[in-house]
Amino acid sequence: MRAAVYHGRRDVRIEDVPEPSVAPGELKLRVGYNGICGTDVHEFFTGPHLIPHDHPHPRTGAVLPLVIGHEFAGEVVDVGDGVEDFAIGDRVAAEPISNCGTCRLCRRGAYNLCTQIAFQGSDALHGGLAEYTVVDAIKAHRLPDGLGLDVGALVEPLSVSYHAVRHAAPEPDETVVVYGGGPIGVGAFLALRARGVQRIVVVEPSADRAAILTGLGADIVLDPAEEDAAARIAELTDGYGADVSIDAAGVAASFGAAVATTAKQGRVVLVATFHGPVSFEPNVLVFGERRILASCGYRGEDYDAVIRLLAAGRYPTDSWVERIGMEELVVGGFEALHEQRAMKVLVDVRAGLDG
Amino acid sequence: MRAAVYHGRRDVRIEDVPEPSVAPGELKLRVGYNGICGTDVHEFFTGPHLIPHDHPHPRTGAVLPLVIGHEFAGEVVDVGDGVEDFAIGDRVAAEPISNCGTCRLCRRGAYNLCTQIAFQGSDALHGGLAEYTVVDAIKAHRLPDGLGLDVGALVEPLSVSYHAVRHAAPEPDETVVVYGGGPIGVGAFLALRARGVQRIVVVEPSADRAAILTGLGADIVLDPAEEDAAARIAELTDGYGADVSIDAAGVAASFGAAVATTAKQGRVVLVATFHGPVSFEPNVLVFGERRILASCGYRGEDYDAVIRLLAAGRYPTDSWVERIGMEELVVGGFEALHEQRAMKVLVDVRAGLDG
Repeated sequence: MRAAVYHGRRDVRIEDVPEPSVAPGELKLRVGYNGICGTDVHEFFTGPHLIPHDHPHPRTGAVLPLVIGHEFAGEVVDVGDGVEDFAIGDRVAAEPISNCGTCRLCRRGAYNLCTQIAFQGSDALHGGLAEYTVVDAIKAHRLPDGLGLDVGALVEPLSVSYHAVRHAAPEPDETVVVYGGGPIGVGAFLALRARGVQRIVVVEPSADRAAILTGLGADIVLDPAEEDAAARIAELTDGYGADVSIDAAGVAASFGAAVATTAKQGRVVLVATFHGPVSFEPNVLVFGERRILASCGYRGEDYDAVIRLLAAGRYPTDSWVERIGMEELVVGGFEALHEQRAMKVLVDVRAGLDG
Repeated sequence: MRAAVYHGRRDVRIEDVPEPSVAPGELKLRVGYNGICGTDVHEFFTGPHLIPHDHPHPRTGAVLPLVIGHEFAGEVVDVGDGVEDFAIGDRVAAEPISNCGTCRLCRRGAYNLCTQIAFQGSDALHGGLAEYTVVDAIKAHRLPDGLGLDVGALVEPLSVSYHAVRHAAPEPDETVVVYGGGPIGVGAFLALRARGVQRIVVVEPSADRAAILTGLGADIVLDPAEEDAAARIAELTDGYGADVSIDAAGVAASFGAAVATTAKQGRVVLVATFHGPVSFEPNVLVFGERRILASCGYRGEDYDAVIRLLAAGRYPTDSWVERIGMEELVVGGFEALHEQRAMKVLVDVRAGLDG
């Protein structure tokens, strides 16, 4: 089958690899679309980071060269032994998480924090940038009629944001600031609006991204290079600060701003991956009983919530998602995302194939 | 009346000042004991910090020279108009908090986070190191028979710790690490034990303090200068880390260690005051959904809980508390605490007075 295989830094090749087959409890999917994540871009330009390159992952056996991609949706074409609740022809989005099932976190249901967690397409086998993949049936979520496989491929990143907003647990009357208007920030904005949050402020320096957010209905998008975002947030909140700040950017500036513009008793939610340490004044937390919460990935309930919201039309996706074919992966995918010429890119893995 | 008056750095004088009188809603107390807090020591040696020195506090009018002390208990000797639930002769511990009563935090009941908060004896009037003080009746808590005014003066610092443990909300089977075995750490240990927490680890480099904690029943006290505390905590928790880490030290080393030795889904609780910024890796929070919670002061429910626990004999205080007279305040109080020759010092404000 045709697949995008990561061989190393700046070396992803579209090549022919063997089709995977199902084991008990698994589903084989014919992939429709697979989205490109910021971590994929990071692996392409500066990796390998998460992709095992010298030793195979001890549990999954993954090691480069490896089929990448973890944001996918597809149609069930084979069903492993013991799977009762899916049938050939079902259309699903599937969590790409491979977890041990036995550690304390897995036993608590917090499998997104498994001590030996791995992700399909990075340190587990069966990436989604391929004609076929296999998934654990327990991680698959049926897509309702009318929800395309392209939209289905967005369930994974949107679930990251939904999970973060779940941690924040905002009330509808609270003021929430989202730092960073990239795909995770957009997902956070949509999740907040779905929860009825009336006042959502997005802080985003890119004019293109700000325009997308405004088009999605964001009333307040601040450019921190052009105006004093902290002063605006203080003004909007009678000087108290935001009830919730979501750091969807993951840099020292966004972290510092998120802590500084949060109200007493407010919550700072970290959802981005950082690339180094940050420095801050813990007293700002102490004297205001401000909390820092952290969100990592998602769980099945987030997939379910996002799928229902997408099906209900509450999550518009037209304005911020682009579609490309496999052969455009590097230029139209990794490079376009790296240079912020695109917000979200989905790869149509079937384009150009027969049948 | 005799009082300890702060005039400036290293300048606290025992002198004669006018007796305060009650306003409506207030109680006048004849003080029994007043404890010395780390913040008092800090004001004495390096202040003024919190004590207003150039402009009076805009709401309370406090400015040096000022009667210090905020950890006190006394006997009611006068009752202001409108106070129904206290009578002359009642023995009380009182929260030394002066709050505005109108800001959003006060209206939520979070008056410990009032935007204009002030403390008696630092930026509000009527410190407790005096023969008499006055308090808001709503902040007073009756001491049951058998609980001395010396023990009553411990309710304030013990409530700081109790409030922090309330934020942590540990389950009895969880492992809790307390960084710092000073008065707040001791209070945290006692509050954790009162909540039934079975495994409490205290990390404390001072042998004297470690001995006190061991005497109070702490099973595991680690000296981070002598052994690898992180390795011991990992070993005790099957490699997962502590469910809760309470930073009762407030230095870069304790903060870093608390974050590093906390399990996925664990809580780091900050209760100490820090004296500068810290640097850390936010990814440690993100990848484990670890949370940083912060605790500031206390509220009435903490005072009530601590008084009940003291009355029930669940909070031994013999081994870690010393009593001095007013004239010993500097040498036996500030200096002894600064040099860690004492854990907790209570001043008997009546000692040496007639009657």
